[in-house]
Amino acid sequence: MLTQTKESTQEIESLMATIGRNAKAASGPLSIASAEQKKTALLAMADAVRSETGAILAANKLDMENGAKAELSPAMMDRLKLDEERINAIAEGILSISELTDPVGEVIAQWERPNGLKIERVRTPLGVIGVIYESRPNVTADAGALCLKAGNAVILRGGSDSVHSSRAIHACLVSGLKAAGLPEHAVQLVPTTDRAAVGELLKGLDGCVDVIVPRGGKSLVGRVQSEARVPVFAHLEGICHIYVDASADLQMAVDVVTNAKMRRTGICGSVETLLVDRKIAASHLVPVLKSLTEKGCEIRGAEEVCIAYPDAVPATDEDWSTEYLDAIISVKIVDGISGAIEHIQNYSSAHTEAVIAEDEEVVARFFNEVDSAILLHNASTQFADGGEFGMGAEIGIATGKMHARGPVGVEQLTSFKYRVHGTGQTRT
Amino acid sequence: MLTQTKESTQEIESLMATIGRNAKAASGPLSIASAEQKKTALLAMADAVRSETGAILAANKLDMENGAKAELSPAMMDRLKLDEERINAIAEGILSISELTDPVGEVIAQWERPNGLKIERVRTPLGVIGVIYESRPNVTADAGALCLKAGNAVILRGGSDSVHSSRAIHACLVSGLKAAGLPEHAVQLVPTTDRAAVGELLKGLDGCVDVIVPRGGKSLVGRVQSEARVPVFAHLEGICHIYVDASADLQMAVDVVTNAKMRRTGICGSVETLLVDRKIAASHLVPVLKSLTEKGCEIRGAEEVCIAYPDAVPATDEDWSTEYLDAIISVKIVDGISGAIEHIQNYSSAHTEAVIAEDEEVVARFFNEVDSAILLHNASTQFADGGEFGMGAEIGIATGKMHARGPVGVEQLTSFKYRVHGTGQTRT
Repeated sequence: MLTQTKESTQEIESLMATIGRNAKAASGPLSIASAEQKKTALLAMADAVRSETGAILAANKLDMENGAKAELSPAMMDRLKLDEERINAIAEGILSISELTDPVGEVIAQWERPNGLKIERVRTPLGVIGVIYESRPNVTADAGALCLKAGNAVILRGGSDSVHSSRAIHACLVSGLKAAGLPEHAVQLVPTTDRAAVGELLKGLDGCVDVIVPRGGKSLVGRVQSEARVPVFAHLEGICHIYVDASADLQMAVDVVTNAKMRRTGICGSVETLLVDRKIAASHLVPVLKSLTEKGCEIRGAEEVCIAYPDAVPATDEDWSTEYLDAIISVKIVDGISGAIEHIQNYSSAHTEAVIAEDEEVVARFFNEVDSAILLHNASTQFADGGEFGMGAEIGIATGKMHARGPVGVEQLTSFKYRVHGTGQTRT
Repeated sequence: MLTQTKESTQEIESLMATIGRNAKAASGPLSIASAEQKKTALLAMADAVRSETGAILAANKLDMENGAKAELSPAMMDRLKLDEERINAIAEGILSISELTDPVGEVIAQWERPNGLKIERVRTPLGVIGVIYESRPNVTADAGALCLKAGNAVILRGGSDSVHSSRAIHACLVSGLKAAGLPEHAVQLVPTTDRAAVGELLKGLDGCVDVIVPRGGKSLVGRVQSEARVPVFAHLEGICHIYVDASADLQMAVDVVTNAKMRRTGICGSVETLLVDRKIAASHLVPVLKSLTEKGCEIRGAEEVCIAYPDAVPATDEDWSTEYLDAIISVKIVDGISGAIEHIQNYSSAHTEAVIAEDEEVVARFFNEVDSAILLHNASTQFADGGEFGMGAEIGIATGKMHARGPVGVEQLTSFKYRVHGTGQTRT
């Protein structure tokens, strides 16, 4: 068994090179597969996940036993765990991807030139996508299905903790590909858990990989971003801010900030820093913080905040650049929109920021001057999500400025080409 | 003078790091500069180029003298040479860029969610663009103006042959920035001709450079593509194909192929390989080749072609992957559209390909299955150009699939962000 022994570097290189070539070879027929054929494959994948529930549960039991032996944390064990409900959710996820509009062949723009040439910009698949993830076995299905929908071949590299579960799910995906007559190398799972395989994938497998998508914690994403020799769609962290302006509605500020922090603290769109306009600090600060405290949130305040709200603990410089992913928020009083923008420019991870304000000029400045992937006005930062954006599903959120930015859905996993229709035109 | 002596590695590193930081600092105010302010700067730049014609000519004289001493080829000397007409064309080029629609702030897409959130995808500048070019001094103005129009700071690194001309033109650009109250570091010219500076730029200047655009020959582009640690918009070469299908109109085939090869042989959109459908080889091959021969084109044919057209010389395997950039064409008889697609998939540089056909099914297969940046039907490959596409101006043509593909105009030099308008929405 490949996972039982450590392979030599040469074996890993050769294995990964083969996977790369197979993915590249599959990407050709896949790029011209019809929308119907891809949908057939996705439906068959979902069916297979349902009908193989027993096999997936058995595989997951092995992973859970190994996880217990390895003394994984309760949070890790929960991420790893599958039950009938979660397996059903995996099948439902594939079905919802099957229902999305097929992006390939969509005419994004078209225009006619004075010489009669008709130019169309048309969506095409990107090619081959490498997805590197950690313990959640459902990513195997989510990422595989989403890449397929966009006509891309995908190389999946899951975490070693979930290896048996991922293999069982991957087998369902392959049976769906076969049922639709698509190349089975369209969705490959790296069979080895040797970390050297990740290194090879990050080098791009000799030009076979077009983009890498890491899904996981900061250390995984950091490694991918620094080592990858191909483009990466990712965000390292989400240090999201909310600025409550002098023109904000108090109740709205209380509701939105509380939701943005406490609905789910562990997601990248959870707010980490609250900035309050000095002009309304006296009226707005305490009610907002009280609501957070009541929900169990720890307040780390700048000096002025601690004076106004004695339950706050003093924030250190490090707090302003910390993604807590926990029931903790850092809070600062700033001098209006200019002060807010300055703080955000210094500390933001360019993921998501929100402004609570009724003054349209303040909103306009915030929208214009803050350069993050997602900016919200009078809404919770927890909406930073492909599903909430109506994209149907996302493979992640990107904070880079190239190609994909914000939620990475099926459209962001495509490229385009130009089709020019002439009637014999020559250039003078 | 920085150019007179070779700096130490450390000096170059420090110089380039400063340039990177200055560009990054300028990109902030530039990204929120109004369309009007950028237009003012461009108009002032064009004025300055005109009023400084004498100074630019004097600088160019120095470059020409050095070029003569260095025994540059006549072609190189011609690229280097400026006269009043060419300087006027540089000013006109800047003016035409000033007339383009400002892309920044354009709403590319907008939709509303069931919960009332209004989502907009809005164009933003990319940030900092590095442009590395060779001897043509006009690139200094073209690239500087185009990057500015898209709200980007730019670091220009011209060839050593044209250093004095580029500096004189750059001074005009800076005076335009100053006249409009924009940061003068928005357009910087690397002052040293030391090649180590290019190496630093390719490393991205510690995260300050967002994208690199090389403009020049294959060896420059190849170096940039292999060394760059940041995204690159480029094409290594344009091995463009025309396929003449059985359904092609003969006269159209003659006209389009002759134009595609002979209008200008030295541009990347010039056709390099002609593929003729076996079914009409007897009727179409000789007239097309005769027209090419009459214009002075050398024919390098596969065996069957040499038999049918004795003026042809035998093609070697190397010919199919050669970008001649000269009055030479390789010619092969293929088995219909399937044969044409197979040849193109094996040898194309994914730049531009054309099909001459009246059969719509053939055209549909060509458009669907050939994955190059630009595909044309019944039109010359020489239309592969941003100006001809109606983009106004281009900084180059990209064959990569990420972000920009095909002509790279002002829109392709932008990114985007999401603006979400709410009325107090929280996520359930």
